[in-house]
Amino acid sequence: MGAVKSKRVPRAIREQQMLDAAVLTFARRGYAAASMDEIAEVAGVSKPLVYLYLNSKEDLFSAVIRRESEALVAAVTAAVEPGATADRQLWSGLRGFFAHTAEYPDGWAVLHQQARTHGEPFAREVAVVRAEVVAFVTELIGAAAKEAGCAGELAEREVAGLAHALVGAAESLAGWANVRTDEGPSGEREHPSAKDTAATMMNFVWAGLGRLMEGERWAPGGLIGQQGRSAAVRG
Amino acid sequence: MGAVKSKRVPRAIREQQMLDAAVLTFARRGYAAASMDEIAEVAGVSKPLVYLYLNSKEDLFSAVIRRESEALVAAVTAAVEPGATADRQLWSGLRGFFAHTAEYPDGWAVLHQQARTHGEPFAREVAVVRAEVVAFVTELIGAAAKEAGCAGELAEREVAGLAHALVGAAESLAGWANVRTDEGPSGEREHPSAKDTAATMMNFVWAGLGRLMEGERWAPGGLIGQQGRSAAVRG
Repeated sequence: MGAVKSKRVPRAIREQQMLDAAVLTFARRGYAAASMDEIAEVAGVSKPLVYLYLNSKEDLFSAVIRRESEALVAAVTAAVEPGATADRQLWSGLRGFFAHTAEYPDGWAVLHQQARTHGEPFAREVAVVRAEVVAFVTELIGAAAKEAGCAGELAEREVAGLAHALVGAAESLAGWANVRTDEGPSGEREHPSAKDTAATMMNFVWAGLGRLMEGERWAPGGLIGQQGRSAAVRG
Repeated sequence: MGAVKSKRVPRAIREQQMLDAAVLTFARRGYAAASMDEIAEVAGVSKPLVYLYLNSKEDLFSAVIRRESEALVAAVTAAVEPGATADRQLWSGLRGFFAHTAEYPDGWAVLHQQARTHGEPFAREVAVVRAEVVAFVTELIGAAAKEAGCAGELAEREVAGLAHALVGAAESLAGWANVRTDEGPSGEREHPSAKDTAATMMNFVWAGLGRLMEGERWAPGGLIGQQGRSAAVRG
């Protein structure tokens, strides 16, 4: 009974297995080099079945991007503490982001490294999701500026720029923190915990934004408002 | 005389024209969709001549990556003020970076968006250049920590993480600041100047790093050392 019945896996589950195999293969080989043969083999199904269910490599890749980006956005959204102060919302969102990307490094590699190739149809999908994240962060920074009573001082364009910088920093940090190591057990590299990575990010980002909110700025002579250590050393 | 002689363009110059055309085409169409026909047409030469000089689309793309990344690194290196304090070195380097990417947005699009596709041979080249930039920034942050007398407090791993965050922030900001707008003359979007973008970046990055150097940290209750505004609002 078991041997025969075990082949009758429902389509929905089979599709998820194929997508799992595709994520792994795309992350390791890249889009161009990934073959449907390998994806079918990793999924433990026949190649015709992959084509039957998911149509083409391009459609399969699109399905992967959609599933992985929805999962990432859902993880971050669920992590954000609603109604908290802006810095706590950012902190909880970043913890969700780094925890999810640490748990699914292959999914992150596909979204971050594979899917952004300009001009391909799937680049647009990733760009749309990224734009949503940037819009959320822009709102958060705007809210923080309001909380700090400096909404007028930070121009709208600068807030948008800061949001792009923040998102880029988080992406880069996630890529570094979760990089695949092929060094084996003797290798020294250990992954920092998602919480440590989020803390590094908050130290980097918020201490800086916090100063900005208080009206401090960096200028070529140093931080304005501080005694000019930099300016003194420079002369 | 002019009509006949004008065809005798030296090979080195012809190659640069082909690379210029390739940068433009790869940036607009993406690697996969860019055709050698279009590149030859934009360069104003025959397709066989492109193949004769640069061998294949893949080799042409490699040559583009090499030329554009060397130009970017040279621009940043030339901009950095040697012997200045760490924040001034970063400031001058960022100004060089944003000025160059603003002047050559297509070259930047190829490096940032096209070339990072994992698993392709040219991804490695871009990764090597990026690793050099990260190493330089890591050194800079380490030097700044030393200047501030807190070298021990910032663990080596955190410095490396901060450098990755900083580089990712700059990349993202450059992508945003130099995004191609197809809105026409009625569109509202104007590019910020390279100097303004660099200033946004320094405000974001250095004010934060400056606090870190002084031993301040962000914690879920707010910046440690400050009165807990966030913590109070939270409860």
